[in-house]
Amino acid sequence: MDLSNPRSSGERLKQSQEEFIEMLSRLEVEELLVHRQPMKRHDLVESMLRREHQVKLGQRLERLHPADIADILESLTLNQRKLLWNLMEPAIRGQVLLEVSDAVRMTLISEMPEEALADSTEHLDTDEIADLAPDLPKKVMRSILKSLNDQKRKRLQEVLAYPENTVGALMDFGMVTIRDDVSLKAVSRFIRKIGKLPDQTDKLFVVDRNNVLCGILPLGTLLTSRLARQVSEVMVSNVVCFAVDDKADEATRAFERYNLISAPVVDGRRNLVGRLCVDAVMDFMHEEADEELLKQAGLQDEEDLFSGVWASVKNRWAWLMINILTAFTASRVIGLFENTILQLVALASLMPVVAAIGGNTGNQTSTLIVRSLALGHITPSNVRRLIIKELIIGLLNGAVWGSIVGLIVFLIYSDPPLGAVMAGAMLLNLLVAAVVGISIPLIRDKLGKDPALGTSVMLTFLTDAMGFLIFLGMASLFLL
Amino acid sequence: MDLSNPRSSGERLKQSQEEFIEMLSRLEVEELLVHRQPMKRHDLVESMLRREHQVKLGQRLERLHPADIADILESLTLNQRKLLWNLMEPAIRGQVLLEVSDAVRMTLISEMPEEALADSTEHLDTDEIADLAPDLPKKVMRSILKSLNDQKRKRLQEVLAYPENTVGALMDFGMVTIRDDVSLKAVSRFIRKIGKLPDQTDKLFVVDRNNVLCGILPLGTLLTSRLARQVSEVMVSNVVCFAVDDKADEATRAFERYNLISAPVVDGRRNLVGRLCVDAVMDFMHEEADEELLKQAGLQDEEDLFSGVWASVKNRWAWLMINILTAFTASRVIGLFENTILQLVALASLMPVVAAIGGNTGNQTSTLIVRSLALGHITPSNVRRLIIKELIIGLLNGAVWGSIVGLIVFLIYSDPPLGAVMAGAMLLNLLVAAVVGISIPLIRDKLGKDPALGTSVMLTFLTDAMGFLIFLGMASLFLL
Repeated sequence: MDLSNPRSSGERLKQSQEEFIEMLSRLEVEELLVHRQPMKRHDLVESMLRREHQVKLGQRLERLHPADIADILESLTLNQRKLLWNLMEPAIRGQVLLEVSDAVRMTLISEMPEEALADSTEHLDTDEIADLAPDLPKKVMRSILKSLNDQKRKRLQEVLAYPENTVGALMDFGMVTIRDDVSLKAVSRFIRKIGKLPDQTDKLFVVDRNNVLCGILPLGTLLTSRLARQVSEVMVSNVVCFAVDDKADEATRAFERYNLISAPVVDGRRNLVGRLCVDAVMDFMHEEADEELLKQAGLQDEEDLFSGVWASVKNRWAWLMINILTAFTASRVIGLFENTILQLVALASLMPVVAAIGGNTGNQTSTLIVRSLALGHITPSNVRRLIIKELIIGLLNGAVWGSIVGLIVFLIYSDPPLGAVMAGAMLLNLLVAAVVGISIPLIRDKLGKDPALGTSVMLTFLTDAMGFLIFLGMASLFLL
Repeated sequence: MDLSNPRSSGERLKQSQEEFIEMLSRLEVEELLVHRQPMKRHDLVESMLRREHQVKLGQRLERLHPADIADILESLTLNQRKLLWNLMEPAIRGQVLLEVSDAVRMTLISEMPEEALADSTEHLDTDEIADLAPDLPKKVMRSILKSLNDQKRKRLQEVLAYPENTVGALMDFGMVTIRDDVSLKAVSRFIRKIGKLPDQTDKLFVVDRNNVLCGILPLGTLLTSRLARQVSEVMVSNVVCFAVDDKADEATRAFERYNLISAPVVDGRRNLVGRLCVDAVMDFMHEEADEELLKQAGLQDEEDLFSGVWASVKNRWAWLMINILTAFTASRVIGLFENTILQLVALASLMPVVAAIGGNTGNQTSTLIVRSLALGHITPSNVRRLIIKELIIGLLNGAVWGSIVGLIVFLIYSDPPLGAVMAGAMLLNLLVAAVVGISIPLIRDKLGKDPALGTSVMLTFLTDAMGFLIFLGMASLFLL
C-alpha cells in the first residue's frame, strides 16, 4: 500500500503476518509468566513490558485493513487469536468479523460478551449486519434490531428473509437514486451535497416518482456530457437488472459476462429495492469455488485450522461413514466370488485395478458433465450427441487400455485367457463408468438437485462394485 | 436486459440459446437439401427461404452481447457452429473469440482464412489481441503487428513478454492519467474533451512529469470536491498498486480483500505502465477455479463438448496412464501375499475397504492443507501444531472407525482375530493417510511447486499400497 516501495501486496501481508505471530508469541509467553508466578516486584516490570507490546500491536492493527487482520487471525492459534482480538476497537471488530471465515467467526463471537458484540455491529451497514446475523446469538440480534431506525430495521428484516444464494441476500443499499426530469447540473449539485459516494458506485440509478427503475446514469456519462442536458436524454434505459429472487450464481455469471461493477435490483413491480455490487459477487464466487473444492473432498465445511479436534472430526465423519458403507457393500461383491479367488488367486491382485480405472474415467466424465451443466452448455437438443460421444470415448479407452492391461497381465502371469478376461472386464467397466458418469449428474440436474453433490461417492461405489462383479464374474465363467 | 420484463438474465439467455439451436437445425437441414439434390426450380425457392432464415439469425445476433453469442456457440455442434459463425460481422467475431473457451476458439480459428482473422482482430484493444495471440497463426500475428501504430505495437510486444499468471499479462491500457499540479476544474474539462471514459474507470491515475505514479483520484472525489481545488490536495497517495511481475493470484486476493475496481500497474522504476481491472481479475479467478476442478478429475484441459473424440481422448489419457501404472504397482503388493490370501480368502474382500478409507481420509486432509496454503494461513510457526492436530484426528478416526469396522468384520465372519487385524490395519492406514496427506502438499509447496497438482494420485497410490501391505502383512503375522 506504500507507494515508496511497490512490493507485491501478498509479500507485504506475509511479512506483517509473521511479525504479528512473533509479537503474539512473545506476549503469550509473558501472559503465562504473569499467570503462573506469584506476584513479585519484577512482575511489575514484566507486566509493563507486556503493556508496551500491546500498545505496539494495537498501533500496528490500526494501520491494517480489516481483511488483513482477518487473515492474520486465521493463522493464529486460539490463544494468540484471543489476545489480539481483545486489543481491537469495537468498530474494527465488526469489520473483521465480516471478513473472517465462518469457522473462525464462531470462535471470535463465542469469546465476546453480548454487549461487546452489539457494540461492534453498531457501525455496520444493514447488508453487513445481515451477513453476520446467522452467527449472532438471538439476544444480540434483538438488541441490534431495536437500535436501528425504522428504514434500516425494515431493510434488515427484508434481507434476512431472502434465501441464501439469491440476489436479495447479496444486495446492499448504497445506491444513489436520481429522477429523470432533472438536468445533469442539478445531479452534480446533488452529488456534491451528499459529499461522499458509497463504495463501488459507478452509476446512479434513475427512478420515477413511484420509485420504479427507468434507467441508469454512469458516472462517466455524467462527467463527459454537457451539464445542461436532462437525465432522461443521456441515461441508459436498456440495463442489466436483477430481481431479488434471481439466483446468485446466475447474477455472478451476468457480472462476469457483461463486466458489471454495480447493477440495480428490483422487486416484482420493478421498484428499485437495492443494488448488487461486484465486491459481493466476487466474494460469492470465491465462496462457491471454495465450497465446491471442499465438497469434492468430502468435507462439509471449511475448518478453522486451530479449532479443537472435535470440530474437525465432526466435519469429516459424515463422508467417512458413507464411504465405509459403500466400500463394505462393494466388498461384499468380492465375497460372492471367494471360491473363484481360491481357484485363481491372481484375481485378488488384479480386481482392484479394474475397479480403480473405472472410477477414474467415470470421474473425468462426470466432472465434464457437471461443469457443462453449470455453464448452461447442455440443452435438450444436444444431450443425445453428448451421450453418444462419451460412450464412444469409453469404448475407445476400454479397447486401447484394456488391450494394454491385458497384455501386461499376460506377460506377468503367462496366462493368455486371464489376460483376455482382464481386457474384456476393463472394456466393460469403462463403459459402465461412462454411463454412470453421464447419468448421475444429468438425473440429479433433472430432479432439480445439485448435480455435483455426492456424484463422486455414488460413482466410485458403482464402478467398484461393477468392476468386481464384471471381472470376477467373467473369470468364473471363462477361466474355471 | 429489457426493463419491461425483469426476468433473470440466465433464463433469458437459455431461451435465446434454444431458439438459436432450433433455427440453426432448420438451416442445417436446408443446407443438406441444397447440397444433395440437383438444382431444380423449387431449389431456388428453398435457397431464398434459407437466406431469409439467415437474415433473421443475423438480426438476432446483432442484438446479443458477444459473451452470449459465445455461450450459444459453445452449445452448438461443429456444423451448426460453422453456420452461425459465417453469419457474423468481423468486429463481432473478434469480441466473440475473446469470450469463448480455448477449446472452442481453436475450432473457430481453424475455420477462418488468415485474412478474415486479421480483420476480426482489427478493432480489438492491445490487451485483447494479447489474449488471443497464443491461439493465432504466426502469419496472422505478424500482419497484425505490422498494422498497429508504434505505441500499440510496443505495448503488445510488452504484454506478450510477461509470463502468464502475472499482473503484466492481465493488465490493460485503458487508463486516464492526469498531473497533480492542475485544478479539478481543469481535470473536468480534460475528461469532457476525451468524451468517453474507458470501461471500468472508477479512478484517474495521477503521475508526475516523468510518468511516475503519485496517487489516484477517484471519480467520486472529483464529483464531490470543490472544482477550485488542486489534484494534489484531494488525491489519495496511499494506494494499492501492483508491479508488472506480481503474481496474478495475489493480485486477485488483493482485489477481493480491498474491494478494488481498478488499480495502477507500475514497473520497477514506479512508472505507470497500465492498469488492472476487476473484470480481468474475475475472469482470471473463474479460470483458476475451473482449472482446479478439471485438474482434480485428471483432465488436462477444458473440452469442447462437440469436438472430435480424439481431442477428448488425448485430454484424458495422461491421467489414465498414470493411474493404471499406480494401480498396477499397488496391486503388486497384493501379489506378494497370494499365499496368505489362499489360506484366508476373506482377506481378498476386506483389503479394498482398508485401502479405500485410507484414500478418503487422506484426501480430506490434503485438500485442507492445499487450501490453507493457498490462503496463506500456514506459516512456519504454526505448521507444527497443524501436523500434530491432523495426526490426532487420524488416530481418533482410526480408533473409532477401526473398532466399528472390526466389529462388523467379526459379525460377518465370526472370527475375532480377523476383526482385530482389520481394526489395527484401519488405524495404521489412517495414520499413514494423515502423514501422506500433510506431507505431499507441504513438500511440494516447499519445493516451489503447485501443492495441489498430482497430490491426489500420489496419495491414493500410497494409501492403497500401504493399506494392502499393512492389512495383508498383519494378517500373515497374526492370523496364519
